[in-house]
Amino acid sequence: MTGVADLLRADLRGRTAYGAPQLDVPVRLNTNESSYSVPQEVVDDVAAAMAKAVPDLNRYPDREATDLRTALAAYLSRSGTAVTPEQVWAANGSNEVILHLLQAFGGPGRTALGFTPAYSMHPIITRTTGTAWVDGHRGEASGPFDLSAGRAARTVEEHRPDVVFLCSPNNPTGTALGLDVVLAVHDAAPDALVVVDEAYAEFARPGTPSALTLLEGRERLVVTRTMSKAFALAGGRLGYLAADPQVADALRLVRMPYHLSTPSQVVALVALRHTDLLLGTVEAIKAQRDRIVDTLPRLGAEAGARGRLEPVPSDANFVLFGGLADAHVTWQALLDRGVLIRDVGIPHYLRVTAGTPEETTAFLDALAELVPAHLEARS
Amino acid sequence: MTGVADLLRADLRGRTAYGAPQLDVPVRLNTNESSYSVPQEVVDDVAAAMAKAVPDLNRYPDREATDLRTALAAYLSRSGTAVTPEQVWAANGSNEVILHLLQAFGGPGRTALGFTPAYSMHPIITRTTGTAWVDGHRGEASGPFDLSAGRAARTVEEHRPDVVFLCSPNNPTGTALGLDVVLAVHDAAPDALVVVDEAYAEFARPGTPSALTLLEGRERLVVTRTMSKAFALAGGRLGYLAADPQVADALRLVRMPYHLSTPSQVVALVALRHTDLLLGTVEAIKAQRDRIVDTLPRLGAEAGARGRLEPVPSDANFVLFGGLADAHVTWQALLDRGVLIRDVGIPHYLRVTAGTPEETTAFLDALAELVPAHLEARS
Repeated sequence: MTGVADLLRADLRGRTAYGAPQLDVPVRLNTNESSYSVPQEVVDDVAAAMAKAVPDLNRYPDREATDLRTALAAYLSRSGTAVTPEQVWAANGSNEVILHLLQAFGGPGRTALGFTPAYSMHPIITRTTGTAWVDGHRGEASGPFDLSAGRAARTVEEHRPDVVFLCSPNNPTGTALGLDVVLAVHDAAPDALVVVDEAYAEFARPGTPSALTLLEGRERLVVTRTMSKAFALAGGRLGYLAADPQVADALRLVRMPYHLSTPSQVVALVALRHTDLLLGTVEAIKAQRDRIVDTLPRLGAEAGARGRLEPVPSDANFVLFGGLADAHVTWQALLDRGVLIRDVGIPHYLRVTAGTPEETTAFLDALAELVPAHLEARS
Repeated sequence: MTGVADLLRADLRGRTAYGAPQLDVPVRLNTNESSYSVPQEVVDDVAAAMAKAVPDLNRYPDREATDLRTALAAYLSRSGTAVTPEQVWAANGSNEVILHLLQAFGGPGRTALGFTPAYSMHPIITRTTGTAWVDGHRGEASGPFDLSAGRAARTVEEHRPDVVFLCSPNNPTGTALGLDVVLAVHDAAPDALVVVDEAYAEFARPGTPSALTLLEGRERLVVTRTMSKAFALAGGRLGYLAADPQVADALRLVRMPYHLSTPSQVVALVALRHTDLLLGTVEAIKAQRDRIVDTLPRLGAEAGARGRLEPVPSDANFVLFGGLADAHVTWQALLDRGVLIRDVGIPHYLRVTAGTPEETTAFLDALAELVPAHLEARS
């Protein structure tokens, strides 16, 4: 008798589901969530807005999410680049935004390319849609996770992908790309949709420009964003993009009708009305990020360690750091001390989210106990 | 220069996006929503639950939606067939549930088959995933939209699909399938996932069994449901299924992580706590449905019309009726009178949702004005 396992799509057999551990530990710094709860003022407004919206839940949501896309466009326009509602597409997290892009512009016989290590969902969503995935690697003389315009351009010229993912600031490594890289890839891949994943844009260091500034006149360029990080709204699942209105029109062909529930739209709309309040924690988070970057290389130095921790420059709300003898052993030792961070699968490296000052202290203190024993010895 | 239109997946070019008109008219009976607002008691509970949940929206939702799946399993078990949380999968509307099924069990080189006219999203979602679609047609001597076990079995034997959709009660025709049809299809397609779409199950006439009663021992059988209809929660976008736990495991490979937002989970959980209250309108809706079925054939009879309106027996919250000279002309005439119903593209037929007694009266009165002039003449 044929069972479920035999019926599964062949390329899915033997795979395991994506998922960071959802563990109940005191200090959770593993999924780049904001450590700051949603302020009471916003909570009250959401409850009031829901009380107003719920009576009509017998009706389908606004399929076009017009009010929400208008508010998202206004938010993006604050940075100085005018974005219209017609340029905005929204979905259940930027994962679903990316799914829609690949459903419309990828598919069997097509290829998507990203520069790894980058957001691990890019290749997963790519393969879910039957699109082939090509790893373009990061790494330059200037740094193991850097990506130069020249090499990025040569990589897309070689592989001629249909979709290119650029992640800036890059997850899990933390550094933003220069716009010269975006432009070089765009121009070197004249038949590709170029997707710049800016999930962490609000945390970038001063002077880091967004690819939003490049949208004008480039209809193949897409910038994705999320409310999960800087807006402290991971539970709200609201991802979005800005691009040429034709891109949004294409996504209407593949989205499920009414894909965004009324509650999801209501919560995001209220959050956007409180943009300044919600983004008020961004500077505090950046301060903790910079504290991690500054502190890590000094851990163990007094003990005369032969190695040292090496943080990657970060424009995000997290820091990737190397110099560990065995990353997984250190990950477990930190978890044993009540601090959950992320083993992203890069040998000798771990990733930690910048939390509150107290959480950051807990992380740094726990790590200090492990150094220098956990360091990779350098000659 | 290559533009967006040139980059679109070839099979999507020239398509238009799915979507019933969202028009602001007095009487909306076009999308099989419940006409009954969510009761104040539920509204208050949702607002309170959201006030409790929103502070933690900085954290991702429960990726497994464990509480929600547990509540859904308990609800399904009320009918007498025990269903466990491990057998339940939930997503943003049954559309997304079906998308997940096709992503896991369909795809390029695979085929899905349904018996049309049926839910129009089945072929659309099928093609979105690169799966081929085969129309198995309905129609027997007993009725133009009937489907017998024998013919259904022969159809799947002929086409050997990988996924079969059975829609019961069938949308847009309204009648439930006998379980003999489900069993015949299941046994005649030993390599297929058999999906019974029971979105309207709660409205079925007495004595109509659910395919839930067949799940035990049949791991290729899937029953999909939704909270959009009987629970009056279309805006909540909560679809689900019951099947072998292995089916849910397969869907974990293709779903986006955290696909169900915390607000969506919270709203659905509160609604399930008020199951009896929310389902309290089902009998009233069924009464209006039966009133439509009873009344339509009599419209125009006194005027000595040569034709007559012919409703299809309905187990749903809507009625498909035939006998119109030109369905689209009648649809527009009703809209001109403030009554929006659905032209589902079947010549001479229209579909109307059973609303409140007042809405149903408005529909019947408007239609009475058009009969007998709009009737198809019969010899």
